[in-house]
Amino acid sequence: MNYLALANPGVDKLHPYQPGKPVEELERELGITNSIKLASNENPLGLGPKARAAIERALPELARYPDANGFALKSALAKKLGVDTEQLILGNGSNELIDLVYHTFVNAEHEIVYSQYTFIVYALATQSHGAKATVVPAKNLGHDLEAMAAAITERTKLVCITNPNNPTGTFLTKSELSTFLAKVPRQVLVILDEAYTEYVSEEERHPSIDWLAQYPNLIVSRTFSKAYGLAGLRVGYMVAHPELISVLNRVREPFNCNSLALAAAEAALDDEAYLEEAVSLNRREMARYEQFFDKQGLRYVKSQANFITLDLQRDASGVYEALLREGVIVRPIAGYGLPSCLRISIGLEHENQRCIAAIEKVLSQGV
Amino acid sequence: MNYLALANPGVDKLHPYQPGKPVEELERELGITNSIKLASNENPLGLGPKARAAIERALPELARYPDANGFALKSALAKKLGVDTEQLILGNGSNELIDLVYHTFVNAEHEIVYSQYTFIVYALATQSHGAKATVVPAKNLGHDLEAMAAAITERTKLVCITNPNNPTGTFLTKSELSTFLAKVPRQVLVILDEAYTEYVSEEERHPSIDWLAQYPNLIVSRTFSKAYGLAGLRVGYMVAHPELISVLNRVREPFNCNSLALAAAEAALDDEAYLEEAVSLNRREMARYEQFFDKQGLRYVKSQANFITLDLQRDASGVYEALLREGVIVRPIAGYGLPSCLRISIGLEHENQRCIAAIEKVLSQGV
Repeated sequence: MNYLALANPGVDKLHPYQPGKPVEELERELGITNSIKLASNENPLGLGPKARAAIERALPELARYPDANGFALKSALAKKLGVDTEQLILGNGSNELIDLVYHTFVNAEHEIVYSQYTFIVYALATQSHGAKATVVPAKNLGHDLEAMAAAITERTKLVCITNPNNPTGTFLTKSELSTFLAKVPRQVLVILDEAYTEYVSEEERHPSIDWLAQYPNLIVSRTFSKAYGLAGLRVGYMVAHPELISVLNRVREPFNCNSLALAAAEAALDDEAYLEEAVSLNRREMARYEQFFDKQGLRYVKSQANFITLDLQRDASGVYEALLREGVIVRPIAGYGLPSCLRISIGLEHENQRCIAAIEKVLSQGV
Repeated sequence: MNYLALANPGVDKLHPYQPGKPVEELERELGITNSIKLASNENPLGLGPKARAAIERALPELARYPDANGFALKSALAKKLGVDTEQLILGNGSNELIDLVYHTFVNAEHEIVYSQYTFIVYALATQSHGAKATVVPAKNLGHDLEAMAAAITERTKLVCITNPNNPTGTFLTKSELSTFLAKVPRQVLVILDEAYTEYVSEEERHPSIDWLAQYPNLIVSRTFSKAYGLAGLRVGYMVAHPELISVLNRVREPFNCNSLALAAAEAALDDEAYLEEAVSLNRREMARYEQFFDKQGLRYVKSQANFITLDLQRDASGVYEALLREGVIVRPIAGYGLPSCLRISIGLEHENQRCIAAIEKVLSQGV
């Protein structure tokens, strides 16, 4: 039976996700131990103490369904962000919410505008919904907002922007973004994906929540997977006009957020010490990489996120493999169209020291 | 801005999910304490000891992304079911997987066949994908498989069957189901939703996994939310032909199952004592309700699941409200088209005793 022929248009062009090898398997294959993983932009501090305590408290009720409305977490978020709970929707990671925007609004008649070298979920969702991708060439490895605005046509339903951008770490300023938003027709939705926004300094961070009042087509997307350290639990949220959120809620699965995610995220939001430690560690250790790359004359992309992208200006796969044999797992991003680059997640101090030493060793060996 | 006008066809006919009131809020409103919830077909035993231990072990890695491939849980399931891991896909509850089948295969050109009085997710997913629902009138509150087979047309993409059925508890036998499957054209997919299958006696349980070899269009759906006691964590799975699973994996979000769900489900699968206790408690306590209803001359639907549906043969909302005031929360199913019925989840012994006493009291008061 040809199952692909039965599937919706676009599915045939997708490929099943190829997960990275589990660390244990990699270690066995390479005959190494004690490897470090700096590949998935995870928080190296691990689960925070308040989130952990909240999980423990929630365990006795785990045979019950989650609160379908996420009341407590939405209330905490609303208070923190200065919005109404009706402006919030919670998801099984922001990935689910991005897909939900597509399920709700996008079909095969539409064009979707996004940048070259951005978060791969936009390309996948565009493809799986049979829509046309308008991929705008990047400028200095980041979004070219002028070109993106110019790429909008009557068929454009959605524009997707990641700021700071993944996988490059590039950053759009307040004025660049607000100039762009003013140009977008109101019937074109804009997802502004701020998965890494907590790592940006307060002065530079764009006031996206304030913009919501002005731009009813703006959807701000955030996550607890990065600075809040809850990637394993899956919880993200979107903020937008309450009527837009209400439309998304029609299509959302009622129990999409698990009970422990709801409890842990609420507690994490209240754990300012953990967040501050995560952000300051990231800043300190980011400088370590920058200094090393500068000293070595290595090219990199200045990053506002929790990773730094090294551009070797030649095929990076040999260096990636050599680092693996040193027990250092980074992320090759040839799949994003950047075969000369390696994305390195900022780890703990000793992990970054080891990564830097491994890069130095591997390059000095002429790999 | 009219956001509904921007949405895909069908979304306008959907309504945002109205979650049940949290128990705490209900108690405050009614001025009661110590209420019992027998409304969501949850496992009254709570989280099992092996699952709990697995969660505790997984906490230190919770800032890491989950295993996108669910390797360990799929291996355990494959061993238990006697299938290949390539025949398995894991989801954020079986609800996500049902939606995934729709996202992958269903569009506005298709008809979907399902029964009157069955799991509401099929109606919602059919609507949100703009497809045409062919709702086949129920026979004795359960599936009329002959009529369902006859309802299949050239435009039918999918048939959905829930066995045991929710919200009625009715059950289709092996021979009824296999006769039906033999009639379904191969290009028409069949979801056989067995969320409650663990509660069915082994002699009566249909050998759906064995049928997969014969019917390449069959998709068996199961969950850890019921007999395995993990509703709060969200984890379900489907078993089907490996090529069908591979097509679904193209559209699946990579990190759809959270780390604690993966760990807890694997441990729960290995906790035979917990499962046996859940099933035997359910059988014992189901008999308690049956005896009470028989004695009182009350009509009910004979159930193979973990709930029993009482048919008052008149509008049930007054009795529902009166039970609430007694601190007993059951589920009115007027939304399923059964306004005379109340669905009661089988609880712990003392909960069922209290529920029965409350029904007796309320009815004796002429409510």
